[in-house]
Amino acid sequence: MANSRSGDSMTTRIVRVLDTFANDRTTQTASEIARRAGLPSSSAHRIIGDLIDAGLLERDDEGRVRLGMRLWELALRGSSALRLRQTALPHMEKVQTVVREHTQLAVLEHDEALFLERLSHPEAGANITRVAGRLPVHASSSGLVLLAFADPVVRERVLSAPLRAVSRETVTDPAALRSLLAGIRRRGHVVATGSIESVSTGVAVPIRDRGEVVAALSAVLPRDADAAPVIPVLTAAAKDIERDLRDSR
Amino acid sequence: MANSRSGDSMTTRIVRVLDTFANDRTTQTASEIARRAGLPSSSAHRIIGDLIDAGLLERDDEGRVRLGMRLWELALRGSSALRLRQTALPHMEKVQTVVREHTQLAVLEHDEALFLERLSHPEAGANITRVAGRLPVHASSSGLVLLAFADPVVRERVLSAPLRAVSRETVTDPAALRSLLAGIRRRGHVVATGSIESVSTGVAVPIRDRGEVVAALSAVLPRDADAAPVIPVLTAAAKDIERDLRDSR
Repeated sequence: MANSRSGDSMTTRIVRVLDTFANDRTTQTASEIARRAGLPSSSAHRIIGDLIDAGLLERDDEGRVRLGMRLWELALRGSSALRLRQTALPHMEKVQTVVREHTQLAVLEHDEALFLERLSHPEAGANITRVAGRLPVHASSSGLVLLAFADPVVRERVLSAPLRAVSRETVTDPAALRSLLAGIRRRGHVVATGSIESVSTGVAVPIRDRGEVVAALSAVLPRDADAAPVIPVLTAAAKDIERDLRDSR
Repeated sequence: MANSRSGDSMTTRIVRVLDTFANDRTTQTASEIARRAGLPSSSAHRIIGDLIDAGLLERDDEGRVRLGMRLWELALRGSSALRLRQTALPHMEKVQTVVREHTQLAVLEHDEALFLERLSHPEAGANITRVAGRLPVHASSSGLVLLAFADPVVRERVLSAPLRAVSRETVTDPAALRSLLAGIRRRGHVVATGSIESVSTGVAVPIRDRGEVVAALSAVLPRDADAAPVIPVLTAAAKDIERDLRDSR
């Protein structure tokens, strides 16, 4: 009942429809969605109709389709992402008053760093990160922290797959990366200069809940900024977030 | 194909499953979900399995089910909620540095005020609002602003439905509410004392995009705080948000 003749579940096809939306593609025609989702037009139109009826998609004044507020509400209400982010936010704001660049919160999601939050000073420098965007774990400072403290199974899977050089300075040699990750576990932080964008330096620390690293807190600075004073600011904020996570259980 | 024997579309049933999660109910067993969604156990288990396969739900270490990070990602990436919220956030932070209580952003969603963001000072007073939570439009300051500037069809629908007294001071008489809304349109703001919680005063102003009110920016103060100085702070922030929305098109 839930499966189409092609064997995809209805859920899979809904995900394929939702997955066609992106930061720089917030409205699409039904035909564009069908094409990008790789679904037959009739099937896509029926799913889009169902999703509009349920409020998960909306039609704008020109008849183009966009993500609905109802989807946003269902995804956030009761999500651990929201709990983590609401707990971290006041402490991220405190970091921002000192760092005055970018402060970010990321989690490990399917071997990538998924960013839950980003605060940016109006005059801050370059930053590739987007809220609800992803970056490779081996290249971003947040990702490196998440990878360093990840389940060894995840770490080996990432290290054994081809590692793409995002910038000229991305570490892509598995042995060098392994030693970098060991250093992060020892020191409890990373300073990654130019590894994702040559113009910036990322500084990241782990956030633990129930003894496990659940997120990375990071700051993105201009490449030549002094990262040293930022490390204790991030470490103190991570401790505060951990305490509040504990208290809110 | 997408419909069950009961006539519900698969999408509707997925929404019913996701809808069982809430702020205070972030993990559930599959049986609890089935019961709360009003779905036959076998059907619920199959949908939950599909949603877990797609990453929209996750199982925790104890086998209980929670909302997945993938759902959060799909709902946010490319959503107008995220664009509005990212545009508003720096200006909300600026409001917070002056108001030091609660600053909030809400949109009209199915005749209710849906809150996209809330910033709170650590020592701020009571506030019923939750991110991804809803409040009645006729009782919350944000809701009153959204209702004042809503499509007349929406306004008449709300005014002709029974209006619940959320607190002793909620205006529930349609004629009185109509006059209150006309005043909000004239003045461009509302100061609502005790209308949703007797201990607090809400102050709200509209945010426009392409000539239409798309959101309300509000502050929640202790009941007896002086609201007058907050009005120009919110009005200036709303203007800044409107400018940034225009620039980001």
